Amino acid sequence: MPTSTPPSSLSENAPPLKSALVLGAGSWGTALADMLARRGLEVVFWGRDEALMSAMASTRRNERYLSEMEIHEGVRPTHDFAVLKEAKADLVVFVMPSKGLRSVSAQLHDAGVFHGRELLLSCTKGIEMTTGKTMSGVLGDVFPQHRHAALSGPNHAEEISRQMPSAGVVACDDAESALALQSCFTLPWFRCYTSEDVLGVEWAGAMKNVYAIAAGIARGLNLGDNAIAALVTRGLAEMVRLGVSRGGQVETFYGLSGVGDLVATCYSEHSRNNRVGKLLGQGMPLAEIIASTRMVAEGVPNTESLWHSARAAGVRTPLMDAVYGVLYENKPPKRALQELLGRDPRPEND
Amino acid sequence: MPTSTPPSSLSENAPPLKSALVLGAGSWGTALADMLARRGLEVVFWGRDEALMSAMASTRRNERYLSEMEIHEGVRPTHDFAVLKEAKADLVVFVMPSKGLRSVSAQLHDAGVFHGRELLLSCTKGIEMTTGKTMSGVLGDVFPQHRHAALSGPNHAEEISRQMPSAGVVACDDAESALALQSCFTLPWFRCYTSEDVLGVEWAGAMKNVYAIAAGIARGLNLGDNAIAALVTRGLAEMVRLGVSRGGQVETFYGLSGVGDLVATCYSEHSRNNRVGKLLGQGMPLAEIIASTRMVAEGVPNTESLWHSARAAGVRTPLMDAVYGVLYENKPPKRALQELLGRDPRPEND
Repeated sequence: MPTSTPPSSLSENAPPLKSALVLGAGSWGTALADMLARRGLEVVFWGRDEALMSAMASTRRNERYLSEMEIHEGVRPTHDFAVLKEAKADLVVFVMPSKGLRSVSAQLHDAGVFHGRELLLSCTKGIEMTTGKTMSGVLGDVFPQHRHAALSGPNHAEEISRQMPSAGVVACDDAESALALQSCFTLPWFRCYTSEDVLGVEWAGAMKNVYAIAAGIARGLNLGDNAIAALVTRGLAEMVRLGVSRGGQVETFYGLSGVGDLVATCYSEHSRNNRVGKLLGQGMPLAEIIASTRMVAEGVPNTESLWHSARAAGVRTPLMDAVYGVLYENKPPKRALQELLGRDPRPEND
Repeated sequence: MPTSTPPSSLSENAPPLKSALVLGAGSWGTALADMLARRGLEVVFWGRDEALMSAMASTRRNERYLSEMEIHEGVRPTHDFAVLKEAKADLVVFVMPSKGLRSVSAQLHDAGVFHGRELLLSCTKGIEMTTGKTMSGVLGDVFPQHRHAALSGPNHAEEISRQMPSAGVVACDDAESALALQSCFTLPWFRCYTSEDVLGVEWAGAMKNVYAIAAGIARGLNLGDNAIAALVTRGLAEMVRLGVSRGGQVETFYGLSGVGDLVATCYSEHSRNNRVGKLLGQGMPLAEIIASTRMVAEGVPNTESLWHSARAAGVRTPLMDAVYGVLYENKPPKRALQELLGRDPRPEND
């Protein structure tokens, strides 16, 4: 929970950011759009699917991804870029799946949707396959003139939509922007901390999905709580090694966006990555798992991009290698974990 | 998983320690005695309760604490100090509840049970109330001439007794003794790492019980996975702050005996501390919880001794303070956690 405090009295502190676009209508996008509207921002909420967004405008529910929550009246659902352009928002929240971020961003750029002074916030966790870049790095390629930030932490959308107490971290290299974002996301049930370590927060958020798959595999194989705890510990060490080599600060990985998000994902029923791993451990083939769910388990593409990043960086990641083997080399999950448990241990802080 | 590797071929490496006393006949003591016997050591297994130990000698089961496991034939149960003395063991494993360690040790000392060259290993997690000392510190007071070590990690006895894959850390300031202990505890389903940081391993092991109670309270109050992950993250930061101030090394707290044991305890059904917290969160008074279980939840006395240690050291521990308030000041669990969530956040690495 790096640096700074939230506003002591929320209602008296109107956030300096007055309006927002939220791009991506999954469960997390829906929860974030609702949070911003509750903090008094005008929110235009964009999703690609016209039928879904139209239904949302009338029912005030995202029936596909987060049907229990009534969406705040300050959220305006749309599938139309023209509506985004008219909004002239101060803040743009990117929360689509990582694989679509660059192409949607390019479309937004080419359509001239932005006025140029928006603060761009990534709430998507992932590393781009072809470039090894974080999501804010991708945004930086497409919109080099904008300021970038990232939000992460142990934040299952389902719980936040039910106003269950949660905490997250918003990172921006500009301290004032970080404070402005903190104000936008501070609610009685959500504590938002600030950080200047955008890269650390993003690498931690992307990597934990890999280890959530590993924990799920262990669960599917009925290896027990001791084994899962050992895997989580080893995963954290890999996150630190690779993330720090990519420019993250070590402390970040021991905070909410690191160990906090890691344990929330490894131990929660809400986690899609954890569920994917569990099904793999129980013997279901990956293609069948992917076909059976509408939601995107970011850990699946993340494992591929992160594995290549780790090879390029020359960083040892034996647990990630095991997950990669299961996902992309048809390695039987049991054998992959056995090989891992059979390796000679090395000093943890190598 | 600090320094060094386990023997590459276990069967060929007979451990230099040939015989052991295991003192304390709870579930963990029973599992440890069995492990040592499986590694070929002669094990005398002492418990205070004559009936329990006699029954164990004939049924080969600890019917009270770990009834599913058949105890290895190399384990000799006894309640008699004279048998301990005759054994002339190389290794003494202390695994009774923390509150009894000093008095039993003093009795052993006064009875002249030890020959003076034993390696003393503490497998009990706790801090002594009156002195603020770790268990190896207590052993050091009573047996100043002996060498001391500690074993810790995410090691639920029930899983180890069922040969489910697990890993732990043995710490000793003498590297050769650490290697000898590593050899004693290395089995196909148990990976034992070594460390020289006895104090760090012990402080981590004692402190995590406090946060397991906190996680249990959150579970009992149905606060959700996000909130528990935030509490675990904050608990880890407190473990680092207090543990390092008491002489532990920071890396230890991010390893198996730190974050590994913390998450195993906070997220496991096996954890008594977690169960105690859950019942507290559901509104059951502490006295009633204690009366309803035969097992000792070390976190209850640990919270008191650690809270006093933190005050004496001038270390900030708001989450521990909340648990202390619930256990010892009759603070309603909901109010204690609300006060915590309502505090102004501070930099995590203060």
